[in-house]
Amino acid sequence: MDKILRELIVENDKKIVLLVLDGLGGLPLEAQGKTELETARTPHLDALACGSECGLHIPIDYGITPGSAPGHLALFGYNPLQFQIGRGVVAAMGIGFPMQAGDVAARLNFATKDEQGNIIDRRAGRIATDVCSRLCELLSENIAISGVEVFVKPVKDYRGVVIFKGEGLSDHVKDTDTQNTGVKPLDPEATSDKGKKTAQIALEFVKQSFRLLQDKTPANAILMRGFAELPHIPSMKSLYKLNSLALAVYPDYKGVSRLVGMTAEENLKDINDQMEKLKNSWYNHDFFFIHHKYTDSKGEDGDFNGKVAEIEKVDSILPQILSLEPDVLIVTGDHSTPAKMKSHSSHPIPFLLYSRNVRPDSAVEFGERDCANGIWGIIKTPVLLQLALGYADKIKKYGA
Amino acid sequence: MDKILRELIVENDKKIVLLVLDGLGGLPLEAQGKTELETARTPHLDALACGSECGLHIPIDYGITPGSAPGHLALFGYNPLQFQIGRGVVAAMGIGFPMQAGDVAARLNFATKDEQGNIIDRRAGRIATDVCSRLCELLSENIAISGVEVFVKPVKDYRGVVIFKGEGLSDHVKDTDTQNTGVKPLDPEATSDKGKKTAQIALEFVKQSFRLLQDKTPANAILMRGFAELPHIPSMKSLYKLNSLALAVYPDYKGVSRLVGMTAEENLKDINDQMEKLKNSWYNHDFFFIHHKYTDSKGEDGDFNGKVAEIEKVDSILPQILSLEPDVLIVTGDHSTPAKMKSHSSHPIPFLLYSRNVRPDSAVEFGERDCANGIWGIIKTPVLLQLALGYADKIKKYGA
Repeated sequence: MDKILRELIVENDKKIVLLVLDGLGGLPLEAQGKTELETARTPHLDALACGSECGLHIPIDYGITPGSAPGHLALFGYNPLQFQIGRGVVAAMGIGFPMQAGDVAARLNFATKDEQGNIIDRRAGRIATDVCSRLCELLSENIAISGVEVFVKPVKDYRGVVIFKGEGLSDHVKDTDTQNTGVKPLDPEATSDKGKKTAQIALEFVKQSFRLLQDKTPANAILMRGFAELPHIPSMKSLYKLNSLALAVYPDYKGVSRLVGMTAEENLKDINDQMEKLKNSWYNHDFFFIHHKYTDSKGEDGDFNGKVAEIEKVDSILPQILSLEPDVLIVTGDHSTPAKMKSHSSHPIPFLLYSRNVRPDSAVEFGERDCANGIWGIIKTPVLLQLALGYADKIKKYGA
Repeated sequence: MDKILRELIVENDKKIVLLVLDGLGGLPLEAQGKTELETARTPHLDALACGSECGLHIPIDYGITPGSAPGHLALFGYNPLQFQIGRGVVAAMGIGFPMQAGDVAARLNFATKDEQGNIIDRRAGRIATDVCSRLCELLSENIAISGVEVFVKPVKDYRGVVIFKGEGLSDHVKDTDTQNTGVKPLDPEATSDKGKKTAQIALEFVKQSFRLLQDKTPANAILMRGFAELPHIPSMKSLYKLNSLALAVYPDYKGVSRLVGMTAEENLKDINDQMEKLKNSWYNHDFFFIHHKYTDSKGEDGDFNGKVAEIEKVDSILPQILSLEPDVLIVTGDHSTPAKMKSHSSHPIPFLLYSRNVRPDSAVEFGERDCANGIWGIIKTPVLLQLALGYADKIKKYGA
């Protein structure tokens, strides 16, 4: 958003709700078929679409598949090419670790290696979170590397995060995870002179970890990826005068939210918890980000019907949000995850924007093709927040 | 428009007409209803839309509500974020006052204050223009401030403009108008060191004015706003090789036109005058800006049916424009003013572009939703002038 325009932003008590179904955009399995969203029975979303302005959005650029962090940054109004967030930072922020400038974090998978040292399972048989916690504690307490503090924290299931604190660290270090099995992990390698010290520390960390884990099969190895320093991102409060609240179950989404200065609720277990918290926090915030993870998970699993069911589940709670009478409600995703592709994809993401002063367009169902005929056509994702601010009367008129 | 592309512009005798219905864009009163434009019986505009290319445009940016000056600048092909025009300048240029670099102008309202000095009517009972003229003369003739020349000129009704000429002036001065009643006007306050001298002069101006007006109830006070210096805006002639003529009834629109170097006709009283002048000037210009104010006024009043009637009035004169066989005719607005909102709004504005060589699209009526399905989708407003130049063969081919 242009600096001149940001100066027009005013604070008021109007409420904006951003409901994100992760990986919402989909594809038909057959050329003449319907997408997951078009297949889902979504009476509430369809009724809302009839009275809304619809369109499709692109988080990064045409043909570019977004990761979760840039997808969300774009939804929060930021240019994801300007603010890059490494995976390590997302993980650390997601578990509420107080990262500071100069720290370097990396995502850590517990994994299984064979006797030759080749990785045979990149997720250590998907060990449970409590097993992961004990292993993180083991590493955290026993690893000592001179000149640097080391923190190892559990994230979820087989996922952890390591944070290094010290002087002269840098994130110019390559992943040790090859993303393949049947091969040895790589040594952490510096991608520039700046990264040499951190690469040395990471190598030492890997060696000590392997020693400590040698009798912990299936979790007898670790893989590191996404070495990252804390980026400086101005807060949504400073940019948009929004007091924002994140209602997310999964740690990574709390992490991205915290990076833009949102308050992120802890201990939300499911969508009912999220709705409960939304109601209880309604008068304390003016921007609410509600995140539903499982549409993406089912898409990644290639489970078309499972994704349909998750969309229907979100549809069923929509009346609870509407009963609060938000001034602006946006329903959308952070990227597409078509079950057909079992992965994130570059396809534009459908959205609906509901507010008192909209021009309902020709979209009569909430689906990719109806949204393509919506009034907004295809827009860049950060535009959505600008529209929300405008429709919530949070931007003054420009010029005489 | 890109500098490389501007070098391709050629002068020819093809005629472009830009017909602006101020505040044209609207909203349905009920979710399933029609907008003002969709409601209006507009047989000529509908027939034209059938043979035109349609779309919606955004003057400033998504979610941003345009003032009239930036809305028009955008229609004239300028980026309104690059050229900012203060209200004082618009007013001064509108009455044909020859402002020069270094002058500072401010809009002036005659107002009514009570015995405590609180403003009780910001428009002095909407005094007539001739009363306003006599009061402006009174101030102009009697106010003396050392080191500066002071001109006070009537605009329309209770509106006037004051222009200060002198050394070291600046527009870094805040409004005295609080936009509220029941409170005292503010003192003119400098917003930077640069503005201190002008703030002092404005304060002296206010004091002398109040003394001269003390027995002139209801016009016993003045309010000042929009302190502004003349911006440097390259002319439409220099940028686009257009000999342009403005046919506007209201002073402010003549003002904006003059800022981009248009010839602005004086003494046009109504749309019949405008049509008469259009015909008489047809061979002397190649760009004609015709401005109809009352669609906006009715929108601001919340008068849905009144706005509908104004749109129908413009529809009825369309054959007169078409009989001149313009090479390009654009019909649109400078912003939306939905009667439902009683104010300018950020909604995209419908347009039709008629020319001999168009690809008529699926829009069969001239309305917001039909235009949303038009061939151009949503474009930034300055694109319109570029399209007009292209369709009028005023841009040479780029490249071999």
